Amino acid sequence: MCELLAMSANVPTDICFSFKGLRERGGRTGPHKDGWGIAFYEGKGNCTFKDPQPSYQSRIAELVSDHPIKSKSVIAHIRQANRGNVSMANTHPFTRELWGRYWTYAHNGQLTGYRDLPYSRFKPVGTTDSERAFCYLMSELYQHYGDDMPNRKTAFNFIRRRLDGLRELGVFNMLLTDGEYLLAYCTSKLHWITRRAPFSIARLSDVDVDIDFAEETTPNDVVSVITTEPLTNNEHWHKMACGESQLFHYGEPV
Amino acid sequence: MCELLAMSANVPTDICFSFKGLRERGGRTGPHKDGWGIAFYEGKGNCTFKDPQPSYQSRIAELVSDHPIKSKSVIAHIRQANRGNVSMANTHPFTRELWGRYWTYAHNGQLTGYRDLPYSRFKPVGTTDSERAFCYLMSELYQHYGDDMPNRKTAFNFIRRRLDGLRELGVFNMLLTDGEYLLAYCTSKLHWITRRAPFSIARLSDVDVDIDFAEETTPNDVVSVITTEPLTNNEHWHKMACGESQLFHYGEPV
Repeated sequence: MCELLAMSANVPTDICFSFKGLRERGGRTGPHKDGWGIAFYEGKGNCTFKDPQPSYQSRIAELVSDHPIKSKSVIAHIRQANRGNVSMANTHPFTRELWGRYWTYAHNGQLTGYRDLPYSRFKPVGTTDSERAFCYLMSELYQHYGDDMPNRKTAFNFIRRRLDGLRELGVFNMLLTDGEYLLAYCTSKLHWITRRAPFSIARLSDVDVDIDFAEETTPNDVVSVITTEPLTNNEHWHKMACGESQLFHYGEPV
Repeated sequence: MCELLAMSANVPTDICFSFKGLRERGGRTGPHKDGWGIAFYEGKGNCTFKDPQPSYQSRIAELVSDHPIKSKSVIAHIRQANRGNVSMANTHPFTRELWGRYWTYAHNGQLTGYRDLPYSRFKPVGTTDSERAFCYLMSELYQHYGDDMPNRKTAFNFIRRRLDGLRELGVFNMLLTDGEYLLAYCTSKLHWITRRAPFSIARLSDVDVDIDFAEETTPNDVVSVITTEPLTNNEHWHKMACGESQLFHYGEPV
């Protein structure tokens, strides 16, 4: 299995604090040593750092956890391989362009019968069940709406219905963003929290670090964080149920 | 204008030496301060580091020039914006998936009338003439061959013919790779060199660094480097002519 992390925010925000916690689980406090990746959006553009090395040893992960990259939408993943070997091609998150936007996705779980999932416009490059499911979802989206981009909330709701079908195949916790909206879907384990004023101090569970968000934010900031297991031990995280999904728009649950 | 750098090799090779030279031109020895990016392939997978900041000041660029990431195919770009603002969406290189492979591209030059270039399957996310031309080329490729991947040498030769049309629109120096083949196309300025045994010492032009490739390589290594201006001042670089293209396959000019 793997661990997921995402952020949706109404102002460009760095994810150093949360990533510092996640990174420890990539081979130190957790067994997810088969690579990691993180995608940051800046407007419609994005940049993805990936490394098939364990995140807790990775120099690139060290940079990402120390160097504040400000973004309104982030998806990160640390991997414990089950389907597909350890390689760059199998390292999440995955990105495809549709309708002039980059769509980025990461998955935690394991699917049976995934080789029968149809895809058309988007083809897998690697050999994971995860990327196969992503290509299926994106191909379905294109097949349904064609060349003209629909209202994106409508598009994400279409994806939600397809996800309800996918969960018949196994464990499917998923994150998907187009840089503006971010969708979280849970079948076994996913938690989220929305931080807004008045901000307070948060303490990481995996490493002895705390942060006073009141010093890092302005009163109008709204920042949601989604993760497999809560990253802090002094805040209340919403635990998602099987089949539950949550869409975020620039930090706000919608 | 911008500067380009690429590497094609028969064994996974790092590009630290060449990138160290290029990076200086991103705001210090050259005016290319409007962002930079570099894509590395590992097998069919790839990873692209991008930053709209000047490369000579960028912590991410510092990491890339110090930390040996081994790859058989690399494309890098430092940007001096002309068409399109300075942003992540306009930062090269650009990547799209076709036929289950990632295609990565960077361009140096300036095109007139580029807004008339047709595209279909692949749409630009940013606003540069460069990405528009990339989407045109990739859409043409798909439109010509359909869903079944042709022999890739044939596909690159098809692209070459379309490039001969594109150069009517202005300056078009370009790099394109699918991780195995790498195509360089020149209309104004592009140089390349193939290094093979017996290897010797190379000296960077932009910074006081030299390297003894004999110590870094095995006798069977073949490594081609393509760049706007020669990066070393004690080797012979092949200067490409207007309309000249060169395809490389794992380091070998073919």
